[in-house]
Amino acid sequence: MVSFDLLKKVEKGEYSAEQAWKLLEEGQDGFDEMGYAKLDTARKARTGFAEVVYCSNKADDHLLGIYQRIYQEEGEVLGTRATPGQYEYLKGYFEDLTYDRLSRILKIDKKGKEYLGLVAVCTAGTADIAVAEEAALTAEFFGTKVERVYDVGVSGIHRLMSRLDRIREANCVVAVAGMEGALPSVLGGMVSRPVIAVPTSVGYGANLGGIAALLTMINSCANGIAVVNIDNGYGAGYLAAQMNRLALGI
Amino acid sequence: MVSFDLLKKVEKGEYSAEQAWKLLEEGQDGFDEMGYAKLDTARKARTGFAEVVYCSNKADDHLLGIYQRIYQEEGEVLGTRATPGQYEYLKGYFEDLTYDRLSRILKIDKKGKEYLGLVAVCTAGTADIAVAEEAALTAEFFGTKVERVYDVGVSGIHRLMSRLDRIREANCVVAVAGMEGALPSVLGGMVSRPVIAVPTSVGYGANLGGIAALLTMINSCANGIAVVNIDNGYGAGYLAAQMNRLALGI
Amino acid sequence: MVSFDLLKKVEKGEYSAEQAWKLLEEGQDGFDEMGYAKLDTARKARTGFAEVVYCSNKADDHLLGIYQRIYQEEGEVLGTRATPGQYEYLKGYFEDLTYDRLSRILKIDKKGKEYLGLVAVCTAGTADIAVAEEAALTAEFFGTKVERVYDVGVSGIHRLMSRLDRIREANCVVAVAGMEGALPSVLGGMVSRPVIAVPTSVGYGANLGGIAALLTMINSCANGIAVVNIDNGYGAGYLAAQMNRLALGI
Amino acid sequence: MVSFDLLKKVEKGEYSAEQAWKLLEEGQDGFDEMGYAKLDTARKARTGFAEVVYCSNKADDHLLGIYQRIYQEEGEVLGTRATPGQYEYLKGYFEDLTYDRLSRILKIDKKGKEYLGLVAVCTAGTADIAVAEEAALTAEFFGTKVERVYDVGVSGIHRLMSRLDRIREANCVVAVAGMEGALPSVLGGMVSRPVIAVPTSVGYGANLGGIAALLTMINSCANGIAVVNIDNGYGAGYLAAQMNRLALGI
Amino acid sequence: MVSFDLLKKVEKGEYSAEQAWKLLEEGQDGFDEMGYAKLDTARKARTGFAEVVYCSNKADDHLLGIYQRIYQEEGEVLGTRATPGQYEYLKGYFEDLTYDRLSRILKIDKKGKEYLGLVAVCTAGTADIAVAEEAALTAEFFGTKVERVYDVGVSGIHRLMSRLDRIREANCVVAVAGMEGALPSVLGGMVSRPVIAVPTSVGYGANLGGIAALLTMINSCANGIAVVNIDNGYGAGYLAAQMNRLALGI
Amino acid sequence: MVSFDLLKKVEKGEYSAEQAWKLLEEGQDGFDEMGYAKLDTARKARTGFAEVVYCSNKADDHLLGIYQRIYQEEGEVLGTRATPGQYEYLKGYFEDLTYDRLSRILKIDKKGKEYLGLVAVCTAGTADIAVAEEAALTAEFFGTKVERVYDVGVSGIHRLMSRLDRIREANCVVAVAGMEGALPSVLGGMVSRPVIAVPTSVGYGANLGGIAALLTMINSCANGIAVVNIDNGYGAGYLAAQMNRLALGI
Amino acid sequence: MVSFDLLKKVEKGEYSAEQAWKLLEEGQDGFDEMGYAKLDTARKARTGFAEVVYCSNKADDHLLGIYQRIYQEEGEVLGTRATPGQYEYLKGYFEDLTYDRLSRILKIDKKGKEYLGLVAVCTAGTADIAVAEEAALTAEFFGTKVERVYDVGVSGIHRLMSRLDRIREANCVVAVAGMEGALPSVLGGMVSRPVIAVPTSVGYGANLGGIAALLTMINSCANGIAVVNIDNGYGAGYLAAQMNRLALGI
Amino acid sequence: MVSFDLLKKVEKGEYSAEQAWKLLEEGQDGFDEMGYAKLDTARKARTGFAEVVYCSNKADDHLLGIYQRIYQEEGEVLGTRATPGQYEYLKGYFEDLTYDRLSRILKIDKKGKEYLGLVAVCTAGTADIAVAEEAALTAEFFGTKVERVYDVGVSGIHRLMSRLDRIREANCVVAVAGMEGALPSVLGGMVSRPVIAVPTSVGYGANLGGIAALLTMINSCANGIAVVNIDNGYGAGYLAAQMNRLALGI
Repeated sequence: MVSFDLLKKVEKGEYSAEQAWKLLEEGQDGFDEMGYAKLDTARKARTGFAEVVYCSNKADDHLLGIYQRIYQEEGEVLGTRATPGQYEYLKGYFEDLTYDRLSRILKIDKKGKEYLGLVAVCTAGTADIAVAEEAALTAEFFGTKVERVYDVGVSGIHRLMSRLDRIREANCVVAVAGMEGALPSVLGGMVSRPVIAVPTSVGYGANLGGIAALLTMINSCANGIAVVNIDNGYGAGYLAAQMNRLALGI
Repeated sequence: MVSFDLLKKVEKGEYSAEQAWKLLEEGQDGFDEMGYAKLDTARKARTGFAEVVYCSNKADDHLLGIYQRIYQEEGEVLGTRATPGQYEYLKGYFEDLTYDRLSRILKIDKKGKEYLGLVAVCTAGTADIAVAEEAALTAEFFGTKVERVYDVGVSGIHRLMSRLDRIREANCVVAVAGMEGALPSVLGGMVSRPVIAVPTSVGYGANLGGIAALLTMINSCANGIAVVNIDNGYGAGYLAAQMNRLALGI
Repeated sequence: MVSFDLLKKVEKGEYSAEQAWKLLEEGQDGFDEMGYAKLDTARKARTGFAEVVYCSNKADDHLLGIYQRIYQEEGEVLGTRATPGQYEYLKGYFEDLTYDRLSRILKIDKKGKEYLGLVAVCTAGTADIAVAEEAALTAEFFGTKVERVYDVGVSGIHRLMSRLDRIREANCVVAVAGMEGALPSVLGGMVSRPVIAVPTSVGYGANLGGIAALLTMINSCANGIAVVNIDNGYGAGYLAAQMNRLALGI
Repeated sequence: MVSFDLLKKVEKGEYSAEQAWKLLEEGQDGFDEMGYAKLDTARKARTGFAEVVYCSNKADDHLLGIYQRIYQEEGEVLGTRATPGQYEYLKGYFEDLTYDRLSRILKIDKKGKEYLGLVAVCTAGTADIAVAEEAALTAEFFGTKVERVYDVGVSGIHRLMSRLDRIREANCVVAVAGMEGALPSVLGGMVSRPVIAVPTSVGYGANLGGIAALLTMINSCANGIAVVNIDNGYGAGYLAAQMNRLALGI
Repeated sequence: MVSFDLLKKVEKGEYSAEQAWKLLEEGQDGFDEMGYAKLDTARKARTGFAEVVYCSNKADDHLLGIYQRIYQEEGEVLGTRATPGQYEYLKGYFEDLTYDRLSRILKIDKKGKEYLGLVAVCTAGTADIAVAEEAALTAEFFGTKVERVYDVGVSGIHRLMSRLDRIREANCVVAVAGMEGALPSVLGGMVSRPVIAVPTSVGYGANLGGIAALLTMINSCANGIAVVNIDNGYGAGYLAAQMNRLALGI
Repeated sequence: MVSFDLLKKVEKGEYSAEQAWKLLEEGQDGFDEMGYAKLDTARKARTGFAEVVYCSNKADDHLLGIYQRIYQEEGEVLGTRATPGQYEYLKGYFEDLTYDRLSRILKIDKKGKEYLGLVAVCTAGTADIAVAEEAALTAEFFGTKVERVYDVGVSGIHRLMSRLDRIREANCVVAVAGMEGALPSVLGGMVSRPVIAVPTSVGYGANLGGIAALLTMINSCANGIAVVNIDNGYGAGYLAAQMNRLALGI
Repeated sequence: MVSFDLLKKVEKGEYSAEQAWKLLEEGQDGFDEMGYAKLDTARKARTGFAEVVYCSNKADDHLLGIYQRIYQEEGEVLGTRATPGQYEYLKGYFEDLTYDRLSRILKIDKKGKEYLGLVAVCTAGTADIAVAEEAALTAEFFGTKVERVYDVGVSGIHRLMSRLDRIREANCVVAVAGMEGALPSVLGGMVSRPVIAVPTSVGYGANLGGIAALLTMINSCANGIAVVNIDNGYGAGYLAAQMNRLALGI
Repeated sequence: MVSFDLLKKVEKGEYSAEQAWKLLEEGQDGFDEMGYAKLDTARKARTGFAEVVYCSNKADDHLLGIYQRIYQEEGEVLGTRATPGQYEYLKGYFEDLTYDRLSRILKIDKKGKEYLGLVAVCTAGTADIAVAEEAALTAEFFGTKVERVYDVGVSGIHRLMSRLDRIREANCVVAVAGMEGALPSVLGGMVSRPVIAVPTSVGYGANLGGIAALLTMINSCANGIAVVNIDNGYGAGYLAAQMNRLALGI
């Protein structure tokens, strides 16, 4: 976007009107036209995080092109909802590509990445772990230290109590739960930091594909509960990384 | 309904066919035609509990007629969802009529009623107490001893812990909660007796008039959770009285 | 949790502070960390029933580990929503393992178990029997005597009438119904004991996967109706066992 | 609409093209332009029933105009959802105008109307009677004999049994029920004639303003259930009159 | 059920009490216990129509048993929602068994059946024909003459107009429509007989599996619209046969 | 937003960088900060239509300020959802202010405005006229000629047929309907121009406040149906004016 | 439909009544009875567009028959939601048949078709392109020039800004978006022409199969937003072609 | 809860077992039993924020008691959803009590409170300001500096652009929007800090009391969006204060 500095430079003759206009057009765009997609190359400048690849349903060659372009720009790539087949296709092209079958994260990490601060990722049951891992790996990709606290749901709340001290040290807590989704409410009453609530589609009967848990969390009587979409571990991990950065002053 | 005994009596000539038929017709009916209603006088025989009066929207004179008819039959009457105006109208006719504004229970109790067994009635917040009182007074009307444990919701779960020993002594627990409705799940994991979950319409935003809490309770990951309708304190109290009677061997 | 007794023992020097703290930590936990799950070993003490295994989507080796751990502790195991494949995998390890294809119950029973009290399990149609069997087998696992009364739905209500006397002897009634789900209302008006209503997803058109039947049951005009989740035979059987125990004074 | 007869008459010169066209335009219209409404004067010819006035929210003078126009055409008028105020306004203008506060029917009947055939109108509870009366009075207006059977809901099903013989004589049955709405299912299994199911908004909690009862009726496992809109007594009465006419050969 | 006649016979000694009781027990039952089902053999007496078999998900041997039992009793059988595989299994056992792949009706017809009266079955589009055929074949099975009027939806309403005269001769009209489901409203304004509206799940986007069309039909501004469940051609055909019988005086 | 022209002027020295920046800030804003609102003064340039005032719940003095500011800029003002009280308050300040109680439009029109092109505004019933008038008056405010065709719903479709020729002359058709909302589908099959469908909240029972009509319209099997929000006459009138302008080449 | 001209000809004896009647019957029909469908051959006269084939679930031979009939009448055919198998079947019969796998459009175009006016088709993401192509190809089939602007969603709004000038030249804008569906609101505030909003089922979690995006668009605070059904690219393209024709004066 | 320190003190004899037990009971409780409520006095220790009073529906004397108790403990009180009448009642008791009619916040602030860090509170329209003020005042009560940016909705997105630099300085952004609720998505793509999305019930038609906006926000394609309940300004302000404290290292 145009700045006073740029106008000043035109006034002083450092740039011609044509040169300034070209800069503006390029800057105004801030994306890479790839034919099958417009890569948002200005995103890191705007939001502090490079574009993340949503792999689901992408053609293999498109996915490869996008990974190559981001890798070249950033030296690392984070992809979500990837299939084993996509991993098979891409792994010949990138030495450090790793794939986690549970969370479906397909990523290339920078070597020697440091993990700072602390985020706790909790689940109510074992079936919620896939979503929790998507959150945890996302937060880690963005340089966050993560503590996993799994299977501590409210029907046996003593399991949660025994881990509470560690949870309280975190800059924020990700609480992943399906079925009735009560875990974030209990956590919200026990910690001083924000709780990011992730409803999952785990359950049966009247769980409405996770809507029941979503409603529980949105209506929580506890304070400091921030809700994301059903099964959206990625979104929770991203938010957690943002909050962790706040605490780190990054 | 026809019984073998009756046939035997007709066979023996103790009853004529006409007399037996008349008895059957009356017995088969088992209700009192009052013009504006059919009082189910056989209910106590069938279900163990006399008919309860749902006062809402009943005309004053109809209500009086019904109270008089039941009082004459049972010596006591339980009415729910009554208005102060209905109490004003009826109180001149019955000496022992009492009205509780919070629960809207309008009743005539037998003197010296004994309260046996034990039922715990818990609420998540103070706004749930009106529904809880409807449950408690209903259970008491049917001869149940009730322990009230109010304002012990999950956002400050230590308040619940301090009363847990008493709750565990009860034959069943009524758990009343609005907003996200997580209390029954936490209780279900802590007690060995059935938990009767009552969602309330307390809350705002996406609580959908109590549907959110109802879904939470129906999807509970805990065992032993029996759900009734939104704000249905009466239904919960009735169920609690039934369970208490089971334990008392009545 | 800490008790006055424990404090007394520390005061008297029977335990050192360190010993007491260790006991508390272990007791406070009350679960078995298995890596892939936290087995709630304190559940029987708290709720009267050992942990039941929800088999759906569990990895074979995890399932085996959990069955072995519970079998060793309890001498019996109840699993729900198991697949034939899981049965094939596990049956080499446990002599007394049995699998019921209809209800998908996979269990190891103690020999010579006694079945006490009485619970009636009724269905509206033949398509509801799978859910009803899950309820019946669960109740039986917990030592309950069960009477099955199947295919007695309201569109031919005389079939129900002919079995009513036996149903009235039960300590509670489980009523399983899909489509419009009217069976619990009819039963609720006929018996003195609680009716546990189980909506099923049986039906088509606007049944909304069982939500229609759930709404019917929650809105029942009859008294003494306790509702559980759609297709949740296990939950109904558990509640029925709890109520039966109340009546038996266990 | 154009007929072969009309063309024949033009061919024969009995009508000029202009005369025929004018007839067609008028006939094609078949309504009375009243400025504030288009009265469907051809409706009786098409459907066998003259237009009925939906009084709700109509301005007093418009209502008067419509009543006068229909009265002049038919010698009788049926209005639904009328207010006491509308009755006050109109009663000076029509000698035989009657208003029923319960059903909100405001009508002018022909003298000496005959009531033929038979329709049974049943309700589950006393609160459903207002809707039932709208159905009954509508059917009667169209010359139907009506048998009222009120307060025979499924939580005390013996009350229904005692009236079954009379119900079975009817050409069709209107079954009005709120709360869980199970009455039509029970009736559907007992009679050979169609059952017109009317859900009402009577109830509380999760009845969703009658949607719960509507779903129950739509999902009925019984045969021969025809459902109309929530609280739509008028629609049910109209359908009942149509079926009664079928049986009468009218 | 007990009758005055029976009592008279006991009085006169024609029956002993024991004999009368046995008759009552058998009569009271009125069903055939087949182990896997309770065949409602009294249904024809009560409702005028023998029991119809809902084939979906029935085991092959159970289905065979039921067809044999009904065939022996009635000399004809109507089954709905049957699969080609069920037809393959059964066809060796019954000479006159026929299967219609579109409507999934699997039936044995009596020879020389007469088709009386008239019912019109209309569809909005070609995709609604499967449901319409289920309705038409059901009505025909019960002795109804059927006129099929397919693909006359409201987006080309002249196609409907050209068939209107024939439709108006019918005793009732079945109107089958998916998508926005407007056909019954248009028909309701044009005919004097009842319109049975069948919403179908045909459509895409926000049709909600047929709920959109169901709501359209329930909210119809036309009179004389009776709605059945989504895709419930059988239910519509049954209702149509009932109405046709009314007109025939059967 | 910055333009090449502006940069050129800075290059040439016609503007200093400071002057250009000031222009950009003002231009970039393109709104009028009024403290209680940000008037979008650039809207006419962007969209061709000046800002319209949504009067509902606005404080009297704020409303006055906004009307004065727009009147000064445009010489005319259109306000929607105004109350009679707001009209009373404002009418002292503007000579040409008019208020229409039915549509709740509160406007100041330019004198001698020309009405060009043609838009037809149709309603299904008389109760839909308030919404239709909001559409008609909005379209007229923006210089559109409007033909009103009211009370032509599908339950008496001949009323619509008689006006079809005029409707077909319009550049687009606004179809306003509540209850089942079938009018747009019928119109869509009859005209060559776009049909703007406006669901209304008119109806009762399961109309869900207009959602039923909205679903009908969204699922229409006819082509050329554009849907707006429930009761959103203003939005429909705006769209109609846009389409009319397209035809006029404005 | 009958015309004054026709009557005049009968009057004059140019046609006999019989001849006129035959013409009317044929003309009144205006469709081609094909047994399995009624082809609406009068549609082009009524609506300006020939009938389009919805290929989904049509039998191969029926599809062939319909394509042949339309091709013979129009010289071109547009089919939507076709499968690759349908293309394989039909391609031997028509030389110029083309199939687009993304949009599933199966069409025969006239040679040398001219594309006039301008419509912009925009998508929020790459996953929305399939629906957008259905819209674009439909509009092009009807002679519209189309500008594609893909992957310009609101989370990187600068990508949209860079293409805004071209979008503003269009006679209308089709805005295709899943997930939260915010693109049409942003566009609506920026252009003077109508925006046709197409919600897609793209997304996960609580997107409810596109209902979330549909609600967003229906509730848009921007003006000039016309909404079509979820994933209904065809409907949007048809509307766009209608609007484009308005601007072209066709 | 018991601590190792406490056990150590008992071991050393500094506390008797009885004294320790009493401390535990009191500490374990951590609430103040007020009869009508259990004030959660331990909340500040657990969560960093003292208990906030939800004033709605509280009796005047109860409200007074609670304000007095909290004021005595904390020297300040924050109340939400208060009525003018409650303010009138309380203002005689507290010198520094202030009431804001728009947000309904009723509070007593400490003198000389410092406001640190920065939070931006944005609204889409003017009707969202009441909810936004509840958020802003809550955040300020907890010591947060707040920048208000109101009326910057997406239908005139240039208004937002002009304030973007200031918004980007904030530690988090609260985005309040009704109708389609698109503002948070646009903001999420522009800032690096978390966006707290607050759907409001502002709107009409199919906004479903704010559910439409809630779904939009939950399904946002942008990253870093944390959603709270409809109209829950308080919850958003609380979360914002938590995030601000993270950034401040408090």
